[in-house]
Order: sequence, then C-alpha cells, then structure tokens
Amino acid sequence: MSESKSTNITWHLGEVDQAKREAMKGHQGAVLWFTGLSGSGKSTLANAVELALHNRGCHTYILDGDNVRHGLNKNLTFSDEDRMENIRRIGEVARLFSDAGILTLTAFISPFRSDRAVVRELLGDRFVEVHVKASVEVCESRDPKGLYQKARAGEIKDFTGISSPYEAPESPEISVDTGELSIEDSVAQVIGYLSDAGLIAAS
Amino acid sequence: MSESKSTNITWHLGEVDQAKREAMKGHQGAVLWFTGLSGSGKSTLANAVELALHNRGCHTYILDGDNVRHGLNKNLTFSDEDRMENIRRIGEVARLFSDAGILTLTAFISPFRSDRAVVRELLGDRFVEVHVKASVEVCESRDPKGLYQKARAGEIKDFTGISSPYEAPESPEISVDTGELSIEDSVAQVIGYLSDAGLIAAS
Repeated sequence: MSESKSTNITWHLGEVDQAKREAMKGHQGAVLWFTGLSGSGKSTLANAVELALHNRGCHTYILDGDNVRHGLNKNLTFSDEDRMENIRRIGEVARLFSDAGILTLTAFISPFRSDRAVVRELLGDRFVEVHVKASVEVCESRDPKGLYQKARAGEIKDFTGISSPYEAPESPEISVDTGELSIEDSVAQVIGYLSDAGLIAAS
Repeated sequence: MSESKSTNITWHLGEVDQAKREAMKGHQGAVLWFTGLSGSGKSTLANAVELALHNRGCHTYILDGDNVRHGLNKNLTFSDEDRMENIRRIGEVARLFSDAGILTLTAFISPFRSDRAVVRELLGDRFVEVHVKASVEVCESRDPKGLYQKARAGEIKDFTGISSPYEAPESPEISVDTGELSIEDSVAQVIGYLSDAGLIAAS
C-alpha cells in the first residue's frame, strides 16, 4: 500500500465530462427559460412540455417556485436587489443542470430584460427563451391564485403587470400565445422548435 | 381554439416526478458528500468514484469549487456567515440534483459539523457522508497547491487544519483513509457501500 500513498492526488484515469454525460442520455443539455406574467401559464406549459420530453426519453428537470423559493432562495426577499439575485442563482443552477446533460425547464416570471440577458450570456447557445404570452386582461381573468385581485386592492405591491413592469422578450427563441393556442398546440410548438433546432431528436 | 383558452391553467395529464426520473435512469438519486482537509484527496476520490459510477451506467454530477465557487457562490466571501451560506446553497443544489434522480457528488472541505448536519437534515436518507480521512501531516506533505505553506507563513488566515478547526464526522456513512488506501481501493470501498446500501445495483 505504501507505494500508492503519494500518488492519490495526481491519479487520473480520465474524467466524466459534459459530452460523456450527454452521450449517456442521448441528447444535449439545454435550458428552456419560460417567462411571462403571473397566470400566463408558464408552469402549466413547462410541466406539459416536460411530460412530452420525458415520454420521448429525454432527461428533464423543472426549476420553479415550488422547489427553489422555499429552498435555495429562501433567504431572499422581494426587494429589487434580491429579485435580481433570485434570477441570477436560478440561472447558475440551470447552468449546472445543463452541464449535467439535462433538459432543464425554468418557470419564473423573470420580468426584467437585464436579468434574462445575464442568464443568456451565461448559457450561450444552450439558452432557449420561451415567452409565455398572454395579456394582462387574460391573466387577470384567470387569476388562479387570486393574486391580481389582491394586487388591485393594494395588498401586494410591485405586482408584475399591475404595479411593476413586465419587459417582454424582444427576440425570444419561442413565443407561445396561451391566450390563443390550446395547451396541446402550445406543447407542439415548443417541441417543434427543439426538434428543428437539433436539441432533441426529430420524432 | 376558443374552447381551450380557459382550460390552460387547469390542464393536467400527469407530471414527471422523482420516481419517473429515477425509473428512466435505473437508479435512485442520492448525494455523496465528500468532506475532508485540503489535500486529503476529496476531488481526486470524487472524480474517480464518478468515473466508476458512470462506467456502470449511473447518471452522475460533481459539485465542487470549480463549478460552484465561480458561479452560484461567486458573491460569497470567506467570512463565517458566508462559509455557512456556501454550504447551505450547495446542500440545496445537491437536493435538487438528487430530486432529478442524479447520483450527486460534492467535494468541499465543509469543516463544520453543524453545516453538514443542516445538509443531512435536508436530504434525509439520501445523504451519504464520506469522510476523506488523512492527517494534517499527510495533507501538508502533499500540499498540491502550496496552500499549507502559505497558511504556515500567515498568508492565508482561517486555514482549515492550521488556523481553523476541522470537525471530523462522528458517524459518517463511509470513512476512507487516503493516507493508507490506494485510490483504487478507496473507490472500491465507496462503490461497495453504495451497492450494499442498495443505492446502485450490485455488480
């Protein structure tokens, strides 16, 4: 045994890199960044797209409020600075997941162009911005969590679309109008893009 | 199309959960948390274990200083508070990776029991603590990055093992003595544990 002692720290048989992880999974890692107003259908669409991808044999993961806000980002407030940090951390975690070879879906309002630009810069051509498009009127008419009602009543301040701006993407890779399209057609549009872009195999 | 408009937000065909992601990969998600002094061989061992797992068809990912310190945690200093936050964030990200069905390996000194206890609490029975054991003397004799020399010269303050304590795990799942074992035997010990614990298939 004594001979091997000093070799431990220089021992290398090779390593597992992104290419090897992707080869095992049969597809590239990438990040589908869903952005849109509260009630636009981001989470619904992301979940439906994930299911479609999973059923095609893709390895997927969703980052959303449920698993990020109460965990990694639970020490962040809703101040401007912390909202920026919220998106930055999500972008960094999405980068790790993409590096792991996973098709990663994120579903956060992410209202500011500058924040999304930081993530795009970080991820390069693995960043797929999906604008989940629905007017404030449509979103407010859905209001599944009663948030618009509370915002109108002044109970929530800086509410995106009501008292805080939503800066729509100027040239997203995908723009899905959930006020017009059915969920099935919305999913088909996203899958079609990924297939055309070579990020997943054509079916 | 008009009929489907209002159904978007309540549409559910089911969802992709941890069990489905694990079924696709053929193994559970778990976190191998390597802890030990600088120079103990954490990164070397974690990389070698990852390669062995990958070669068995397991889906893996390593979180280490290279991909975390300069990304997700680049806004943290080396203050006590930030060191704690560093480990907390790594634990939360490891939890997400484990939830994604990935065998996740982390390689950080993580010198404090209380910090590791937080992560253990978070991950439950998916947490596998691996103590990478080597005496300060052995690590200092290796000193691959010249850090011990700098610490002895007072150029690095609060250096674990020299001017800051390393609190060794009291009951780690695995304890590997890299001062005694070859790297091949160290890897075999870790793989043996994972196999015996049912976290990976027996070979």
